[in-house]
Amino acid sequence: MGGDSAPDIVINGASQSKIRHPNLKFTFVGNKDRISSLISEFPNLQDSGIVHTNEIVSANAKPSVALRSGKNSSMALAINQVKSGLCDAVVSAGNTGALMAMCKIFLRPIDGISRPAIAAYFPTITGESCMLDLGANIDCDANNLVQFSFMGQAFANIIMGIKNPKVSLLNIGEEEQKGLDYIKEASLILSSMEDKINYTGFIEGDKIAHGYSDVIIADGFTGNVALKTAEGTATLVTTYLKKAMTSSLSSKIGYLFSRKAIKNFRQQMDPRKYNGAVFLGLNAIAVKSHGGTDAYGFANAISVAADMVEYKFISDLKEKLSKVNMLSLK
Amino acid sequence: MGGDSAPDIVINGASQSKIRHPNLKFTFVGNKDRISSLISEFPNLQDSGIVHTNEIVSANAKPSVALRSGKNSSMALAINQVKSGLCDAVVSAGNTGALMAMCKIFLRPIDGISRPAIAAYFPTITGESCMLDLGANIDCDANNLVQFSFMGQAFANIIMGIKNPKVSLLNIGEEEQKGLDYIKEASLILSSMEDKINYTGFIEGDKIAHGYSDVIIADGFTGNVALKTAEGTATLVTTYLKKAMTSSLSSKIGYLFSRKAIKNFRQQMDPRKYNGAVFLGLNAIAVKSHGGTDAYGFANAISVAADMVEYKFISDLKEKLSKVNMLSLK
Repeated sequence: MGGDSAPDIVINGASQSKIRHPNLKFTFVGNKDRISSLISEFPNLQDSGIVHTNEIVSANAKPSVALRSGKNSSMALAINQVKSGLCDAVVSAGNTGALMAMCKIFLRPIDGISRPAIAAYFPTITGESCMLDLGANIDCDANNLVQFSFMGQAFANIIMGIKNPKVSLLNIGEEEQKGLDYIKEASLILSSMEDKINYTGFIEGDKIAHGYSDVIIADGFTGNVALKTAEGTATLVTTYLKKAMTSSLSSKIGYLFSRKAIKNFRQQMDPRKYNGAVFLGLNAIAVKSHGGTDAYGFANAISVAADMVEYKFISDLKEKLSKVNMLSLK
Repeated sequence: MGGDSAPDIVINGASQSKIRHPNLKFTFVGNKDRISSLISEFPNLQDSGIVHTNEIVSANAKPSVALRSGKNSSMALAINQVKSGLCDAVVSAGNTGALMAMCKIFLRPIDGISRPAIAAYFPTITGESCMLDLGANIDCDANNLVQFSFMGQAFANIIMGIKNPKVSLLNIGEEEQKGLDYIKEASLILSSMEDKINYTGFIEGDKIAHGYSDVIIADGFTGNVALKTAEGTATLVTTYLKKAMTSSLSSKIGYLFSRKAIKNFRQQMDPRKYNGAVFLGLNAIAVKSHGGTDAYGFANAISVAADMVEYKFISDLKEKLSKVNMLSLK
């Protein structure tokens, strides 16, 4: 029931994602009548389950309030489906803070991880990188960043299929003496673990999109600002382009000839393509969809979760983390 | 002598800027022989002065080292031209940290300002905003942000000509309870001063480019990451566009028809257009050019300084700040 257009886009998106992943089976959590009536329109969702509740977590609820009073909310019951083993992953377009808080309480962080983080894909000139944390932890210390680094490395390896992912810390300069103290401290720790992680040093904001690094690590405040600023800039540039291409008769003719190319360009920039932020560091799979996305975007968030189930992400991550001995870092 | 291609682009840029501002008179600081030989190529620079030195501040020098051993560097002598009243403004493409450190020591912060900040223009859908701090102060408290807000307000008013500039704090959400403590504290202070500043609350990264706010306030770390991430994203998008427009015969024909429009689009996105970061909060005008810019970009940085001189920015800023009683905020 979370997000701006639930449950419509959730159910429509589930149907779309099932075309790509025919083995998926869904349990929808929320108002039974609305869900049943929507499901009836999609032949491939007839095997879906429904868990009924009329309670929801509102978009602006504080996480603490959601935790206290939201035990029967669609969000809590959906997470419980995963906790109880009835489902392999939970996908929600609802309140991010509440979802993370509930996931931490119900699904628990993996041993050795003090704080789970939010990770997402970031488009680059050479392909894609992943970036974390994007807002779960606005105040971080050096060990948090180190833990994020190992979680990001595992995600890039297992899900993105990169053999020896390059991991960098987001900073305001590439030189050793630059930046905030806890980032410099994290850099020293990561540099001392070169047999366990392919740490490539600091990366500046303008280099993220170049694809020099596969995994970009930041505290949740900085990561969130960077991600959103990138989104806003992409919108700005495409707005400028649209204005330019409709500015004269000649440019309009040009647009007709390059329509297909510009459509491909738009698709490459489409934020819905990158929808689906992963909660990394929990004992189960939880994916957060953008609240304002549509069915296509929601289907992509489901795909992220489906990939993580298929590649047995959690057990593989736990195995990788056990080799690092995260507990000694705390 | 600062930046990747000095003194060539500095002198070439000065000549370009003098076409726009014929009343400008330059003093170049650095190696006399190289400067004289370059000046001889530009008829409109024949009235320029030269202050000779062979010493420079290297690009990677720590600010503390530059301060200690750089007293006869081109950077220090250029700032001293302003301190002694021989020049009205200093423009440099050199080491940012060293330039800020020297400016603080030689030119001193304005009474009531504990930390000067770096401000620059940010392109938006509706025009331009200004943003600070972009890297002078990586660790900030609430009062620093409040001081930045008043300095930014003055810049937007005096230099950008905006009557009652909207000022926002960069944050990861728009709701009151979101974000880091010192940002929330700054928000409370600014909210209590509504007769003195048009404070419009928090702004998220994706809204910067929308132009909802005229002045965006952040600590130097976050501001630097946001600015650079925006630059990187703009490069990414234009790279995608270039690839798309050369992907087929049809798109290439389309490009021919829309060449002029795409050229305008590129010009609108040109980072050289926004070159020239202002050191706000000092007793004199200092502008930092990007180290990697060319003569056109350097000319724009000079224009920023020239505008500030022309609009008597420093005396106007001091008058505005005196009305706020900054000292009571410390």
